[in-house]
Amino acid sequence: MESDRKKAVVLSSGGLDSTTAMAVAKNEGFDIFSLSFFYGQRHHHELKAAERVAAFFNVKKHLVIHTDLNKIGGSALTDDIDVPKSDDSVIKNEGIPVTYVPARNTIFLAYGMAWAEVLNASDIFIGVNAVDYSGYPDCRKEFIDAFEKMARLATKTGVEGTTALSIRTPLISLTKAEIIKLGTWLGVDYQITHSCYDPSEKGLACGRCDSCILRRKGFMVAGVKDPTPYISK
Amino acid sequence: MESDRKKAVVLSSGGLDSTTAMAVAKNEGFDIFSLSFFYGQRHHHELKAAERVAAFFNVKKHLVIHTDLNKIGGSALTDDIDVPKSDDSVIKNEGIPVTYVPARNTIFLAYGMAWAEVLNASDIFIGVNAVDYSGYPDCRKEFIDAFEKMARLATKTGVEGTTALSIRTPLISLTKAEIIKLGTWLGVDYQITHSCYDPSEKGLACGRCDSCILRRKGFMVAGVKDPTPYISK
Repeated sequence: MESDRKKAVVLSSGGLDSTTAMAVAKNEGFDIFSLSFFYGQRHHHELKAAERVAAFFNVKKHLVIHTDLNKIGGSALTDDIDVPKSDDSVIKNEGIPVTYVPARNTIFLAYGMAWAEVLNASDIFIGVNAVDYSGYPDCRKEFIDAFEKMARLATKTGVEGTTALSIRTPLISLTKAEIIKLGTWLGVDYQITHSCYDPSEKGLACGRCDSCILRRKGFMVAGVKDPTPYISK
Repeated sequence: MESDRKKAVVLSSGGLDSTTAMAVAKNEGFDIFSLSFFYGQRHHHELKAAERVAAFFNVKKHLVIHTDLNKIGGSALTDDIDVPKSDDSVIKNEGIPVTYVPARNTIFLAYGMAWAEVLNASDIFIGVNAVDYSGYPDCRKEFIDAFEKMARLATKTGVEGTTALSIRTPLISLTKAEIIKLGTWLGVDYQITHSCYDPSEKGLACGRCDSCILRRKGFMVAGVKDPTPYISK
């Protein structure tokens, strides 16, 4: 028996943003289908976090797609380029950061679209954010709108006119502090999430990379206690 | 030293259509970067064909992306559904065929877009065809146009305004016979290509599936000798 409840595919990195996006979907009453990717990223610890998050939200199914995106290259997150630390100039939000992975959100959303079609899900949630990641072209509203339009033409449902797929970006115009406040209000336990681009072997956050700094600052500004044990204080 | 020649990413399945699209790109003077996918499809023989095609056109690089698209399911090409034969009704171009893989072209084009960005390539060639595959939503011009628009917003080049990526579909309005005539004129050796959805273990074409029938009929109508040895005459 197919459930009558509405279904959402939620792209989950195990990080702070996607976990908050999942909390929003849950709060709207969706059955959640969480989708993660193993793509040769250095921080495979995020996959463990994504599993913890899936369990926390009691998702209907958690799917991990393996793909060797790293063969394409072009990013510090999959290549042998050093991940920038806080003392480097690249992190200061000038232009497009070196941690940008070409077409990553497009590829991830395309898989989400495939799964949504099979599940007959009406919504895909993605935790993109245009405030803190203003340098990433595929975090902007114009991109998301164009993807949604394309997706509606790309799928069976688009042709047969049954369900019009919506790409949902509940965090797109929030600051990190606002995201943390929203998630805290929705009951997210941020201790289970992972943000660091350059963790230790055991998965401890470095505290100094782009992503750690945004996270730490976010908790500070939000006035919420940060549960993350960082290597660098 | 970077070559001054223009670069194109060509999506290559090793089949008749994508090989002809590659011939068009070659004829226009592009340096070719061919991109294939191993996604749990039954007909892995197409990957061997894609290698033969890459060698035939002397491509700059041939890349095979592995991804477990089959985990998502929803198609006779990746699931355990029987591939339809010519005596089944599903093949008669009524609605969307069961061999349709959800979002496949979107996913493949998204990877193509990633590679194009890294290579600074201006064009992506895809051998989609709206005549013989009218039931596939992602083979239509409306979809390709929407993808191109999205792609220009999704990438660095789109933001920085350097190269506007073009999605090239030289076969979109051609019949199979016209594709074969075009490719023959451009010197394609179709013997190296593979079209069958349901080949023998050694890779021989069945002669009876949707794809084989379109191919056989195409050669017949084009008046070109079909070099393919089929199991079923």
